[in-house]
Amino acid sequence: MQRVEDQIKRLIEECDYDEVTRLFATLKGGKRLRAKLILKIAPKHKDAPLLAAIVELIHAASLLHDDVIDDAMTRRGEASVNATDGSKTAVMLGDILYSKAFTELVSFDKEVAQTIASSVTALSKGEMMDVQMAEYFNADEQRYLDMLYLKTATLIEAAAKASAFLAGKNTQKHALYGRNLGLSFQIIDDILDITADEATLGKPAMNDYVEGKCTLPYIYLYQELDDTDRTRLLALHGKKPTNEDLLWMRKKMKEHKTVEKSFILAQELSNEAKNALQEDEDLVDILNTMIKRSY
Amino acid sequence: MQRVEDQIKRLIEECDYDEVTRLFATLKGGKRLRAKLILKIAPKHKDAPLLAAIVELIHAASLLHDDVIDDAMTRRGEASVNATDGSKTAVMLGDILYSKAFTELVSFDKEVAQTIASSVTALSKGEMMDVQMAEYFNADEQRYLDMLYLKTATLIEAAAKASAFLAGKNTQKHALYGRNLGLSFQIIDDILDITADEATLGKPAMNDYVEGKCTLPYIYLYQELDDTDRTRLLALHGKKPTNEDLLWMRKKMKEHKTVEKSFILAQELSNEAKNALQEDEDLVDILNTMIKRSY
Repeated sequence: MQRVEDQIKRLIEECDYDEVTRLFATLKGGKRLRAKLILKIAPKHKDAPLLAAIVELIHAASLLHDDVIDDAMTRRGEASVNATDGSKTAVMLGDILYSKAFTELVSFDKEVAQTIASSVTALSKGEMMDVQMAEYFNADEQRYLDMLYLKTATLIEAAAKASAFLAGKNTQKHALYGRNLGLSFQIIDDILDITADEATLGKPAMNDYVEGKCTLPYIYLYQELDDTDRTRLLALHGKKPTNEDLLWMRKKMKEHKTVEKSFILAQELSNEAKNALQEDEDLVDILNTMIKRSY
Repeated sequence: MQRVEDQIKRLIEECDYDEVTRLFATLKGGKRLRAKLILKIAPKHKDAPLLAAIVELIHAASLLHDDVIDDAMTRRGEASVNATDGSKTAVMLGDILYSKAFTELVSFDKEVAQTIASSVTALSKGEMMDVQMAEYFNADEQRYLDMLYLKTATLIEAAAKASAFLAGKNTQKHALYGRNLGLSFQIIDDILDITADEATLGKPAMNDYVEGKCTLPYIYLYQELDDTDRTRLLALHGKKPTNEDLLWMRKKMKEHKTVEKSFILAQELSNEAKNALQEDEDLVDILNTMIKRSY
């Protein structure tokens, strides 16, 4: 991973703008999931660290714009650029990182460059969909999964596919792996918003629903409730709930096992990914660790 | 130009998202200066219309983000996306257009793709610089011109250079032409903000200074004023001036010929561009028309 960090550092320095260097240093790198995946899939390819650095810059840019969109004041437990330097700076820093990533992408094979570049269109579409879907209660499971795929899974899918291409491995199987890893990762994240406590999350529990995000456990709940309870659930959408409301939602979710149902879907997606690449122990391990987060 | 519009239409349709098609249709295309330049430089190259469409998408994306940054409520006389659909949608639509443009760029020669992609990093840096420079009175001419180059001239420079590459023409001379065209175009624009009336501009005259933008006529004015007048000028920076203040600024600019001095610089830059490509009548005509806008 040091080679990836070195490449990231070089790309930021090449932007040749003190303000960019200063601001980028304030961003927390996160788990570097996408970079690790690329190095695991194409460990011996000389350009894998550069591809990993490019994908991490794209991911960082998308988070910067995501925080502007969501008016998020924190990111990974720290104040967001949005909060410290304003949304204007966050938009521009994102644009600089995106375009620097695209410039470097040009040196790769067209197949690789096109795969990564088009995933950015997909993730931006997903962001736009996410904003629009937060304005009403979306009870359509497929519509939610389509948005999740675009917003969270496409870049991971592209990273897996592009690195498989570099390594001469099966691109289709790796794309499926990346897609399902991304989807089940996000479903687990949505579950944790409900099941984990405030201290673990670094934000109030069940905050997604306050922000208008109808994740799977809420969609499944809506499907199960009678008319009276549905009305109550809908009335809480996008609002700060009282303690009583919170307890009521948790009770109903327990009653109808909607968290379990969401978890089962995450598991199915993860199993499908495992089956596609069962010979690759490292990749299977990533899935196992990810699924275990929910306990 | 119809071939360019057809390509733009195709690229937008390929984004495959109704909301993008709807929003893009509300954007006014503008003068398509960059597209026309590309077609003039590489009229016979089969991919020139696609390159022109890509550059226009990038330009549209940069304007969308620019309007978010500037809190602009109008663009080309119409309500901005920012105003009608919110800044979040404007950020995401910009990201979609940028990434779609980059995806298509991959099919070009690396020289072309890298030239265009790196100019987007430059223009985003220019935007960021512009935001920061609006927070204080910048009296440094070179610093202002550096920002102008990044923000306005780099994409035109890249368009001219990339199309010269396609046409097998001298890339260095065409790059110089594009850079100077962009710089002098913007200087004339800055002059018009002072000399044109509200009806022509579609916004109050001398609005740049209200927004904190210290354009050349203000920088030159600052350099000429005595301490008392400097203090008055600085006090007006970023504020809505009274009629009396406006008249005072105009009188002082007239006295010290700061608009004329700015115009002379625009002319010098334009002449340098003409000298580089004097054999190309069409390109010389573009410069002549542009310079004449100021009368």
